[in-house]
Amino acid sequence: MYVPPHFLEINTDEIKAITQAAPLACIVAQTDEGLIANHIPLLSAPDGRLIGHVAAANDMHRLIATGQEVLTIFRGHDAYVSPNYYPSKAEHHRHVPTWNYQVVHVYGAISFQYDDHAKRAAVALLTRDHERRVNGPNAWKMADAPTDYMQQMLDGIVAFDINVRKILAKSKLSQNRDPQDFRGAISGLQGAGHDALAAEMENRLPKPA
Amino acid sequence: MYVPPHFLEINTDEIKAITQAAPLACIVAQTDEGLIANHIPLLSAPDGRLIGHVAAANDMHRLIATGQEVLTIFRGHDAYVSPNYYPSKAEHHRHVPTWNYQVVHVYGAISFQYDDHAKRAAVALLTRDHERRVNGPNAWKMADAPTDYMQQMLDGIVAFDINVRKILAKSKLSQNRDPQDFRGAISGLQGAGHDALAAEMENRLPKPA
Repeated sequence: MYVPPHFLEINTDEIKAITQAAPLACIVAQTDEGLIANHIPLLSAPDGRLIGHVAAANDMHRLIATGQEVLTIFRGHDAYVSPNYYPSKAEHHRHVPTWNYQVVHVYGAISFQYDDHAKRAAVALLTRDHERRVNGPNAWKMADAPTDYMQQMLDGIVAFDINVRKILAKSKLSQNRDPQDFRGAISGLQGAGHDALAAEMENRLPKPA
Repeated sequence: MYVPPHFLEINTDEIKAITQAAPLACIVAQTDEGLIANHIPLLSAPDGRLIGHVAAANDMHRLIATGQEVLTIFRGHDAYVSPNYYPSKAEHHRHVPTWNYQVVHVYGAISFQYDDHAKRAAVALLTRDHERRVNGPNAWKMADAPTDYMQQMLDGIVAFDINVRKILAKSKLSQNRDPQDFRGAISGLQGAGHDALAAEMENRLPKPA
């Protein structure tokens, strides 16, 4: 990924926030059948591994060798940024369109797990995380489902983890603009309905003393 | 990509709609330096080619040979779907969490163009498309910028097109659920603030006679 220094994201809290806010990652691998990609919700375990599971019918666990390096892509909000958003455009017209976005690229070796323990752990971790966000105290739990049904579901999946070797993250958020154009880009994006992206940019405004 | 038959998206209008609504595509390639990915806004030309441009400083046009096949991924809205959303959960509890999303994978050979004509055409096509959406009659045009500045900007980019060989699209939108659970998933996602994804699902409800 091309990352000019001013867009390189090195804040580990921010990188974590991007991956947690957009857990549906795209896992890419080179295989004997060419490039393949699958979108899969992932969770970052306390030890740093990425945890997930796929349908047993998903060929990725047959096409990708255990231990092979894959590229995992998390992606935040994005939007087109018009030159019209910059107040200084009216003065000198020296602006062109661009696109703002945040992405996190993770390189690491994937390992597939076929044992019941690993599969239960992966499902439990992911479920707990998402249910807590969506349903709070009414969170669905694996134990809510009948034992035979849950076992059947677990039999239909394969768990995996990715041992992170390298992270490359990019926050392209107009932070290279002068303050008035930066604020203009925020307003413009708000006007175009991109509130979440604009909020991400507002977080980078200098805090009032 | 793993696509069970009930999630295979074959509606060409829908595939076009996904790519137009989420033009920031992820272009993936296998190179001598391993897997690389770059997020780049793309436009589908009338002849079907995907058109884009990158910074000349972006190594992808050096790492990827002209004519090499790349995988281009467009991604629509996505969200976690809780078992709690399904009314039938209360009856039999035979549900597990899942994730809804739409993605379009495009395989095709990329060709880079270094001539001024191709670069101007790529910028003009993309700019016109996005400015029309964002600014309507007040659309920014390349001609708004001073000639020397625009030339400098064009000198800093490389244009490319992708000749589409194969498209594989997936609409994972709970359409395999029974009608009451499908409607429940829509309501649940609306309740969780995923209105755009819910609207995409509502479009698949049977129309009243």
